[in-house]
Amino acid sequence: MNSASPILIVGSMAFDDLQLPSVTATDVVGGSATYSAFAASVFAPVRVVAVVGDDFPASTLDAMRTRGIDTAGIERASGKTFRWAGRYDADLVGRTTLDTQLNVFASFQPKIHASYRDAPLVLLGNIHPALQIDVLNQVERPRLVVADTMNFWIQGEAKILGEMLRRVDLLVINDEEARLLSGIHNIVKAADDVRKRGPRTVIIKRGEHGALLFDEEGIFAAPAFPLHEVIDPTGAGDCFAGGLLGYLATVPEVTPLALRRAMVHATATASYCVEAVGTQRVSQLAMNEVKSRVSGICKLYDFGAHTM
Amino acid sequence: MNSASPILIVGSMAFDDLQLPSVTATDVVGGSATYSAFAASVFAPVRVVAVVGDDFPASTLDAMRTRGIDTAGIERASGKTFRWAGRYDADLVGRTTLDTQLNVFASFQPKIHASYRDAPLVLLGNIHPALQIDVLNQVERPRLVVADTMNFWIQGEAKILGEMLRRVDLLVINDEEARLLSGIHNIVKAADDVRKRGPRTVIIKRGEHGALLFDEEGIFAAPAFPLHEVIDPTGAGDCFAGGLLGYLATVPEVTPLALRRAMVHATATASYCVEAVGTQRVSQLAMNEVKSRVSGICKLYDFGAHTM
Repeated sequence: MNSASPILIVGSMAFDDLQLPSVTATDVVGGSATYSAFAASVFAPVRVVAVVGDDFPASTLDAMRTRGIDTAGIERASGKTFRWAGRYDADLVGRTTLDTQLNVFASFQPKIHASYRDAPLVLLGNIHPALQIDVLNQVERPRLVVADTMNFWIQGEAKILGEMLRRVDLLVINDEEARLLSGIHNIVKAADDVRKRGPRTVIIKRGEHGALLFDEEGIFAAPAFPLHEVIDPTGAGDCFAGGLLGYLATVPEVTPLALRRAMVHATATASYCVEAVGTQRVSQLAMNEVKSRVSGICKLYDFGAHTM
Repeated sequence: MNSASPILIVGSMAFDDLQLPSVTATDVVGGSATYSAFAASVFAPVRVVAVVGDDFPASTLDAMRTRGIDTAGIERASGKTFRWAGRYDADLVGRTTLDTQLNVFASFQPKIHASYRDAPLVLLGNIHPALQIDVLNQVERPRLVVADTMNFWIQGEAKILGEMLRRVDLLVINDEEARLLSGIHNIVKAADDVRKRGPRTVIIKRGEHGALLFDEEGIFAAPAFPLHEVIDPTGAGDCFAGGLLGYLATVPEVTPLALRRAMVHATATASYCVEAVGTQRVSQLAMNEVKSRVSGICKLYDFGAHTM
């Protein structure tokens, strides 16, 4: 742990009201920064920049600190915490947003503390691309910048999003976002197009079908770990990003091979997240559990390719 | 090639009228037996049992014979060949059946010639489960029986389908069929349930997302080969089955490792099929092309697992 590089995570912290096929849960602590930070904390020290309202539980911040997450960058603003309410389809793939209340998140202006600025790995969660750029203007030449985004910014903030893309090394998006951003249906061509817009590497998440990485070495496919039970997919993508950065914080250099191994560790990390509601499982996750699932993924892919 | 075991394929031969996003094509030679036979012929000698009408082109039968496919078991009946018409969605995933004319296929009764009965590998294409059983009653203790089926038989012929399942070693179905057959949404649990119904091994095809194999060793995931262009998905599943059996015909024993390598060769074979309309591409496919794509798939999966 001590040898891992620190990771700076900027994103949302929230309450989620979740209508899941198996259970309805309200006031569930969520948000992209929360999920990513818990996931990354399995691997490395984490610094979070986010905003919460005065209703956000101190116990969650305590739990984060016990995981080696620096919470000094989490601003407590007067007002209510960002809240999202959604209903998942029975297949846990489709979901409908029932309500979004930005609350204190509406005026979020990420301020990167002086002690945070040298973080070699930066994860820009899904926030306004202007704020993502603003973060990059405050940090000192990170080794790797990873960004997430969403349909809302792709459609509404194309110009500023384009600027952001030119400044990130790795973009993590889902297949629909890749199609929307590129205007191309074929996922290989869509990824090629996105890479031309800036990021050297693009990861396209496909939910229960895993993720594809596109870089100068070609394509790497990481199928999702097949689970007997999926309870709550919320935050899986954020845990994937957190696990990805987490693994990369433990290696000396971000090589194509390291990125592929990071994908496998990210898949393992995210697979635990969906086994329980909210951050319940990922907030308790231990390295030996991740390693055990990585072994499972090795088996899942194994057809003795190196002896063929 | 000479050392490969012969494969018996029983299925449909047809004309397809295809409305594809990029082209509309009529009178395209298709059918499960046709696609599977061309795919399997890359690896091994193939014997086909099927029925065609007097309108079926002799040139296709000639083309099959030049590929080492024994066509003596293809009955030419008086009347028209089975015809299917369909329209694909722009994403090439969804498709709508516009018309089905069974024609001579309606009274198909597979008769397995004496010289065909000792085939060690048998592929039962998607025909009525009673006919699949009828084929098994005529053959002599094959080493491996692989079957395909579809929603229509799962819903309409559950009892006889159950009998068929008890007699096959490997069932190849898609995810929706696995869910329908088991009544279970989770794909891991659905596969477990299907395996309890008879087949020791179940392969679940997920189209552009690849396929999963479930056996006593666990799960193996074969992501589809990411293509820059998909023209016509028709027959991809049949080519997958043909490539699977084809590879298994070249190895001395059907072990879990051989099955996994067969999945990779099946994926490679099917990936060529979808690059052109109908059997155009797969009917010309050479072993060195399959090997080259297998290398591509090795790279697609490679994260140096054996050195981790």
